[in-house]
Formats: sequence, structure tokens, C-alpha cells
Amino acid sequence: MKKLAVVAIGGNAVNRPGEKPTAENMFSAIEEAMSYLVEMLDEYDIVITHGNGPQVGNILIQQEMAKDLIPPFPIDVNDAQTQGSLGYMIVQSLRNQLEKKQIKREVAAIITQIIVDRNDEAFKKPSKPIGPFYTEEEARKLMNEKGWIMKEDAGRGWRRVVPSPKPLDIVEKEIIKMLLRNDVIVVAAGGGGIPVIRDNGSLKGVEAVIDKDRASALLAIEIDAQELIILTGVEKVALNYGKPNQVLLDTLTVQEAEKYLKEGHFPAGSMGPKIEAAIDFVTATKRTCLITDMKKLKEALIGLTGTKVVYG
Amino acid sequence: MKKLAVVAIGGNAVNRPGEKPTAENMFSAIEEAMSYLVEMLDEYDIVITHGNGPQVGNILIQQEMAKDLIPPFPIDVNDAQTQGSLGYMIVQSLRNQLEKKQIKREVAAIITQIIVDRNDEAFKKPSKPIGPFYTEEEARKLMNEKGWIMKEDAGRGWRRVVPSPKPLDIVEKEIIKMLLRNDVIVVAAGGGGIPVIRDNGSLKGVEAVIDKDRASALLAIEIDAQELIILTGVEKVALNYGKPNQVLLDTLTVQEAEKYLKEGHFPAGSMGPKIEAAIDFVTATKRTCLITDMKKLKEALIGLTGTKVVYG
Repeated sequence: MKKLAVVAIGGNAVNRPGEKPTAENMFSAIEEAMSYLVEMLDEYDIVITHGNGPQVGNILIQQEMAKDLIPPFPIDVNDAQTQGSLGYMIVQSLRNQLEKKQIKREVAAIITQIIVDRNDEAFKKPSKPIGPFYTEEEARKLMNEKGWIMKEDAGRGWRRVVPSPKPLDIVEKEIIKMLLRNDVIVVAAGGGGIPVIRDNGSLKGVEAVIDKDRASALLAIEIDAQELIILTGVEKVALNYGKPNQVLLDTLTVQEAEKYLKEGHFPAGSMGPKIEAAIDFVTATKRTCLITDMKKLKEALIGLTGTKVVYG
Repeated sequence: MKKLAVVAIGGNAVNRPGEKPTAENMFSAIEEAMSYLVEMLDEYDIVITHGNGPQVGNILIQQEMAKDLIPPFPIDVNDAQTQGSLGYMIVQSLRNQLEKKQIKREVAAIITQIIVDRNDEAFKKPSKPIGPFYTEEEARKLMNEKGWIMKEDAGRGWRRVVPSPKPLDIVEKEIIKMLLRNDVIVVAAGGGGIPVIRDNGSLKGVEAVIDKDRASALLAIEIDAQELIILTGVEKVALNYGKPNQVLLDTLTVQEAEKYLKEGHFPAGSMGPKIEAAIDFVTATKRTCLITDMKKLKEALIGLTGTKVVYG
């Protein structure tokens, strides 16, 4: 019996830092990422999740520039667009890697909605910056016209901020489980999933963004995964990251993780959500979460590197 | 045992004629379409396919207007984006309709690639107009710079034309069959599928557009569907459509269909591809293809209206 893992790939697996977001560059980055992932298929069944921040940001800019001709879609639909484009790129790249290794496995990308609570505190204080930068004048106009909440972003201009509510339930979880039972490699919950609320029993998209690592943790819990694997740009989680007194961590208990999180070791924009996701998964399942660089995945899976977040 | 049908919904099921392509209008149109489709679930298992012409056209305009900031994606990736957005809208709307009727069924939208032949004649003479209109000067520049083929379009300006090759094989067909065996309603082959070629064993996207009705026929053949159902804006197929001597057809054999097609009764931009798809499916399976208006689907399924294309 293979182990089941949810593998969250990072932004650099989809578009290498510093490279233009052309389809060609993205396919190249994704193929490289998939070449690492196929290495684990002897031991693991996997569901692959991915972020979509830069890709949704680009769609928002495209929509903005064409808005006099084409009505912009809300963010839930933009999320769906990126589940399509990135899902396609991942499925195709992974199928090609499997073909090269002569591994016969099916791969499917599933459009995934995730339920959030409309009473989530996040809706009262949107915090996640998204999309293009605007001048103060443009920003004030958009706040008036569209009811957007916008904030000045570190001298770079004004930017829309949207809520980042907690993911509660994956609408397509039974589909994902069914595909896994049938030996399929699944790509799901892309971009943290499409955020939806239940409104009198009906599903309805909301203008929000779900953190992809927290969505991955929820998915791992709901499909009873043995392991959550979060791939990122660093080999190990660090205390005092980037400072002279930096300490690399091999393991980290949930209690330690919570303490270090409070002490500010893991910034909100980078390692923070990964640690929170690890805490969510490990607390709910008493299993482990591995955080490492995709290039080190093979060694990390046999305990030679990476950081393991463990129960305790 | 229920019958298995592929149901191709038309452009008006996704965006009503004359309505702005806002997400709100599109959700409203799709919800209406799904309200007709749920009526058939007592008798049928279904795979839903859909077009994406106007939606890809809009993305091309958005990409064009933002091209100095964001590198435009090629058409295969744009197709994938619309499989995401429309797949999401269809899944959500159908789930909501099922909930209202208290029908417990899972629904999944699958990113779908379809193999085409790079030696298909269509690549030598691209014919399908797509995306924004350009001035002659812009068009000449684009033809030089990008190698696009562009044509003057009935005095409205210059437009890119892309190949519309024949769909040969659906990459995700095993996934679709697996979901159907598990009682899932599947949304697949959106926009005619993402066109890919096999290049030394590897899948690779191509800049082309597959006709959604022909893709639907191929899908129906490959999953062994009992029926292909093509929903469109008219209740019945007509000879001399819109003329004083118009004749509405109840049934149509493949031989008659081929004859009328040659005689020019079914224009390339509207009924032509539907009749071709019907001929493909009926010839391959000796089963029937129903063409009708979605609003008349219920009556058509019991033989009260619609046009049936039959073997012979």
C-alpha cells in the first residue's frame, strides 16, 4: 500500500523567480517541478495543489486594461481561470514526465470550490493585497464605485485588499477521493480553491482568496492523507531567517511552531501560512508535515533534509 | 440502467444573446440551462460539453490590451482558462439545481486535452477567425512578427485565423469514463478541448481551435454514449433556413444530412459543424443524434420535437 500525500507546490515551481510569465517559461518550470514529483510515485499516491497569486494578479491587470470593452470577472471566476491554465500545464507536464519514465498513471485536474463562512472575521478586515497598483485618485474612485477596500502598499501605490477566509470544506472532496481510489494522480484546490459560501443551500462565489497552504492542509485532512508536503524555495524552515543567528530546523513540534509563529519568526507573506497549514494538519491528524525545497524532495522523503512538523 | 448521453450546450446557454458577458449574466444563463438538463437525469447519465468562442475572444482582447505588461498566453492555455471559468460556472449552477431538486449527485469539471494531427490539412489553411479586429497596418505587423495568418473579415477589419483540426483522441477519456462509472455528472471537453499534438511521445499544445460539436461527437464515441444531444438556438434543423420555403426536419438520415450539407443548407458558422458532428457520431455508432433547443429538451427526449439524425 502506498502512502497518500497532498503535495503543495510553490510559486517558483510554476514560474521561476525573475523569469517572465510566458507560457513557455511556465511549462519549463512546471516540467522541472514534475520531474521531482514523479520520483515519489513508487512510494506515494499524490494530490498536487498549487498557488495562483501572480497569475490572478496578471488576469486582474488584463481585465483592468480592457474593462471598457470586456466586463471584468470577479475573483472567484479568475481563480477558476487559473485552475484551468495551471491545471492544464501541470497535467500535461506530469503526463509527459510519466511517459518518459514509462509509468502508466492517469492524471486529472479538477475544478475545485472550497466553502468559506461569510461570517469569517476576514470579511470584516480584508488583508490580502491583490492585482495592479493604482494612484490614490484611481483608488478612491474604485472604492466609491465598486466598494473595494484599498490600501497604500509600502510606497508602491494603492492596491486592492481582499479577505482571506479560513477554508472549511472542499465541495469536490468526494470526486478527489474517488479518483484517488482509482489510482489517478489528482491536481486540485488550485490557487487555494475557488472560495464559495452557502447561501440558502446554494453555492455562491465570493470575492476572496484562500491561502493555498491552508487549503492544502484542509484537503489533506478531508481525504485522510498520511502526509502533507509543502514545497517552497528553502530546504529547511529557519528561525531568525536570513540573519547571522539563523537556525535551520530539522523537526518542529506543533507547540514549538505556535511559539515561534507568535514570536514573529515566520512572516505572513512567506513561511507564516505554511507553518499555520502544518499546524492545522498535524493537530487534526497527529501525522507529519514536511516542508522543503522541491529540489531536495527525494532526500527529504528519506529524512536526510527538510523540516518535519510533528505532533506534540 | 440509465442511458449515457453527451450533451453539448450552445453559446446561448452560457451567455444569452444580447446580454453583456458579465459573470452575473453568465451564471444566470447557465443556471437556466442547467434547470433543463436536470430534468433528464432520471433517464440519463450525462457528460456536458460547451463552447468557448466568445470567452476566448474576450481573453484575447484582454491579453492584447495588456501585452506591454503581461505576456499573452497561446490559445491552448486560453482554452484551458475558459475550461476553468465555464467549468466552474456549470458545476456550481448544476450543483445548485440538484440541491433544489434534492438529487444527490456529484458533479466534476475536468480539464480536457484533445489530440490533433499536426499534419491535419487545417494547419495548412487556417480558417477559423478568432479574437479582436485589427487595422490592416497592425495586421501586417502581427503577421510579420508572430507569423500569424490574418484575414480581412467582411469590412469589419483584420482578424487572426487559426486552424480548426479534426479531434482524434481525448487524452482524459479514461478519467471521464471512471467518473461516469461512479455516477458523477461530468463537464468535459470545454471549448472543443485543448488542442495538443504528440511530439516524440510528449503532449504539446498547439495554436488551434477544435470545433466543440465535433469534439463532443468524438467524446460520445470514445465513452460509448448511447446518444449525442446537441442543444442550440433552434427547435429543429431546417432546410432553406429562414427562407419562405423553409422546411423543418423531424428526422434526417446520415445520407440525407451529407447531401443537404453539400447543397449548402447548413452554414459553416452555425448548423454545419453540428450536422458534421451528428454524421460523425451516427456513422461510427449507428445510434442517434438529437439536435434541438434546450428549452424543448424534455419534449424532444420523448420524440415530440427536435431533429433526430439517424443511421442510414
